[in-house]
Amino acid sequence: MSAAGEPIKVGVLGARGKVGAEVCRAVEAADDTELVASVDAGDDITALNAAGTEVVVDFTHPDVVMENLHHCIQHGIHAVVGTTGFDRGRLDQLEAWLADAPGVGVLIAPNFSIGAILMMRFAAQAAPFFESVEVVELHHPDKADAPSGTAGRTAEVIAAARRDAGSAPMPDATSTGLDGARGADVDGVRVHSLRVRGLVAHQEVLLGTAGETLTIRHDSLDRVSFTPGVLAGVRAIADHPGLTVGLDAFLDLG
Amino acid sequence: MSAAGEPIKVGVLGARGKVGAEVCRAVEAADDTELVASVDAGDDITALNAAGTEVVVDFTHPDVVMENLHHCIQHGIHAVVGTTGFDRGRLDQLEAWLADAPGVGVLIAPNFSIGAILMMRFAAQAAPFFESVEVVELHHPDKADAPSGTAGRTAEVIAAARRDAGSAPMPDATSTGLDGARGADVDGVRVHSLRVRGLVAHQEVLLGTAGETLTIRHDSLDRVSFTPGVLAGVRAIADHPGLTVGLDAFLDLG
Amino acid sequence: MSAAGEPIKVGVLGARGKVGAEVCRAVEAADDTELVASVDAGDDITALNAAGTEVVVDFTHPDVVMENLHHCIQHGIHAVVGTTGFDRGRLDQLEAWLADAPGVGVLIAPNFSIGAILMMRFAAQAAPFFESVEVVELHHPDKADAPSGTAGRTAEVIAAARRDAGSAPMPDATSTGLDGARGADVDGVRVHSLRVRGLVAHQEVLLGTAGETLTIRHDSLDRVSFTPGVLAGVRAIADHPGLTVGLDAFLDLG
Amino acid sequence: MSAAGEPIKVGVLGARGKVGAEVCRAVEAADDTELVASVDAGDDITALNAAGTEVVVDFTHPDVVMENLHHCIQHGIHAVVGTTGFDRGRLDQLEAWLADAPGVGVLIAPNFSIGAILMMRFAAQAAPFFESVEVVELHHPDKADAPSGTAGRTAEVIAAARRDAGSAPMPDATSTGLDGARGADVDGVRVHSLRVRGLVAHQEVLLGTAGETLTIRHDSLDRVSFTPGVLAGVRAIADHPGLTVGLDAFLDLG
Repeated sequence: MSAAGEPIKVGVLGARGKVGAEVCRAVEAADDTELVASVDAGDDITALNAAGTEVVVDFTHPDVVMENLHHCIQHGIHAVVGTTGFDRGRLDQLEAWLADAPGVGVLIAPNFSIGAILMMRFAAQAAPFFESVEVVELHHPDKADAPSGTAGRTAEVIAAARRDAGSAPMPDATSTGLDGARGADVDGVRVHSLRVRGLVAHQEVLLGTAGETLTIRHDSLDRVSFTPGVLAGVRAIADHPGLTVGLDAFLDLG
Repeated sequence: MSAAGEPIKVGVLGARGKVGAEVCRAVEAADDTELVASVDAGDDITALNAAGTEVVVDFTHPDVVMENLHHCIQHGIHAVVGTTGFDRGRLDQLEAWLADAPGVGVLIAPNFSIGAILMMRFAAQAAPFFESVEVVELHHPDKADAPSGTAGRTAEVIAAARRDAGSAPMPDATSTGLDGARGADVDGVRVHSLRVRGLVAHQEVLLGTAGETLTIRHDSLDRVSFTPGVLAGVRAIADHPGLTVGLDAFLDLG
Repeated sequence: MSAAGEPIKVGVLGARGKVGAEVCRAVEAADDTELVASVDAGDDITALNAAGTEVVVDFTHPDVVMENLHHCIQHGIHAVVGTTGFDRGRLDQLEAWLADAPGVGVLIAPNFSIGAILMMRFAAQAAPFFESVEVVELHHPDKADAPSGTAGRTAEVIAAARRDAGSAPMPDATSTGLDGARGADVDGVRVHSLRVRGLVAHQEVLLGTAGETLTIRHDSLDRVSFTPGVLAGVRAIADHPGLTVGLDAFLDLG
Repeated sequence: MSAAGEPIKVGVLGARGKVGAEVCRAVEAADDTELVASVDAGDDITALNAAGTEVVVDFTHPDVVMENLHHCIQHGIHAVVGTTGFDRGRLDQLEAWLADAPGVGVLIAPNFSIGAILMMRFAAQAAPFFESVEVVELHHPDKADAPSGTAGRTAEVIAAARRDAGSAPMPDATSTGLDGARGADVDGVRVHSLRVRGLVAHQEVLLGTAGETLTIRHDSLDRVSFTPGVLAGVRAIADHPGLTVGLDAFLDLG
């Protein structure tokens, strides 16, 4: 909660979108947050200021998000951002704006699922202790890309952790077989994509060494799985002035 | 047990090989079987006859197995065979020999693991009731082939069952991705091969339709997993004169 | 499809309930069924007759379902029933009514999930081939009963299959421990109930023998998982005159 | 490796035991360790000194381990200890001896499996971010205790992490059911024990919150799974003078 135990005053940008609407519901349901402004395309963004918004949550569109954030930073409103499309140039621009707004925090997070973030973190930490690491991701068959973005990133952080630790290449004696059987190669880490009706979004990291394996699995069964992460960002952003990329920086993992 | 509740008299061919030795131990350990002859390369095969062998178990080599079986069939000894290398020509030869030996049974089984056999059976039975079916096999990284022989056969029986039932092709909207991510294609069924240190031999068949999935998984954790199947074959072979291919014909699945 | 390839004319009783509404959607979406009547409490049931209904789907209430079925049977309309509360007395009554209506079929099914039905079927078939069998069911924490009804029934069919096969009691050397660690005992089969936020409805049957295990798992991720089973019932009921209990009787498992 | 890239000179106490023999094999197989002394009951422990032993690995018996360690500490030999039975009094005694032997390190580890240690670590770190956490452990049916020691400790560290974080009690609406269905209660964490033939030693921690679950699973398939952890201890002990309890203190998890 903010000072004096008052609920945090939250404004939602993109409030009528599917994701934004879930955020509004979650902000209203939590004891320590209060929804004071719901803004969408066509609405006047100064409604945020009129309502005394302390933190904005932005799930809008790459075309408008920079304008939204410029407004928030200028008016001392923290921002928790799930909109995509942030490249190096955009992040530099945000840092320049924030340099003139001491105390204001902006969180850009590609993923708000705490389960997915922990899966990636644990996979990277464990990877140097095992000879073999592979990634399996499982989704509904209407998904267009394979592997998923999360699986690709997971493989990259695993590969980076093993590079830093000086791990040997993984053993693989495969000499004959069918094309594709061993999956895709992402920085030396094998990634396998299943597409099965009835599934939602699931991922498993399988690590093995002599006589034992460790499996870290994340199952996302419902769209609402991002809301606890958004609320965690809303609660912590005031204590993290400046630009932060990735929700994991806010998760205190001891 | 054989008539009068006597234990079945079993001879093992290839008795000093790694697999044959396990068979000997299992035959000795079971109440209803008795090990009466252990024969390996260099030994005299007529030891089987001298010992009153009723059923032979053969885990030898493709080079000698036909000679072994000719001897057994001529002398009225049933045979349970795990040796590989049986093509159509060899099976025809066995049937010709058996035509002259009424009452003698020969079982040729590529796989004695009851778990693996049931996995394949159930996967084929269930496949027509689901929109999507994929196969994942997981082995130690010293394995040379990918996918495994069992995974390939599983995909084939799944494909055949769906063909017979007139099932639609499986949905898959993948339009962009990395080579190999979606696995190998075996008769239209996707097969994924993981190679991870610490694993032994594992396979999972994942079936899905609107709102639900069914998973059938087999874990083979120890070489001894074939012995219950061999004993099941030994117990049933006298009741199955002629040639049988595949242990599943002996499993009464109601 | 019915004669001449015409879609089957379906009426839904309880059409405005949560489940009934899903059934209406599924009947409309399928190529070989046509929704001709939607009836709920307060509506006139003779709308079924007026619309030429061939098959009724009933998801109503134990208080009204017998009256509904009496009407259907008298008018030669087949019925697929998901309403609960059928005891021996009610089933006897249905059989008496059906005796006077040759050709009419009624299916009473406690579970329309094809995945759940196959899980139970396969578990029972496999149980005699393994030394150990245990059941784990996993649900959201708002569920009132533990174990779930499906888990209890699964344990019962496993126990019955082992009794019929003369299987030995399962091995268990547990001599010290905490109360409850080994789960509940249902006819000699151990059943474990997990209650975890984020889960929907899941069940796993784990079977093991020397060196290998077989796992059969069913994940129900969405309420719509019963609709394929309801449609399977609608398509088959005309070919199954008289009373049938359990959808599995309609699943041709070769 | 020790100074100048020489292999570390290792002595094994309990060298002819099942575990000790595996340690000997692993020490001989690794490039950076050298087996210089193998001692068992009845042998003269001063063989360690004669061989220039730098690090001792002790897998002996509670009755003799303190005497072994006294000898090692007095002679400046580091020790990596897997023998059980260390209570507070014994640890205090070791610390007193070590106070007089600056530079000598002793590691007492109840568990050398890196997979098991990481499972516990990750479970404790993740536990405060989820509403529900339950533990399932699965072992062969010859095991005497339920739950396993590892499962009990895992539940304790989960409970402690949630206490420290001020987590709410876990939701559970169970109001009717069978005794034992919900498992054992260890500090408010539910623990379920399966006993199935064919299994070795396996454990799963299942964490869930709105719309998503995270599963951390450890499979120990072979007795050799402790050797990588023993070697990690041997390599690091010289850099950790004094008493250390638990191998996790040596695992650099960034």
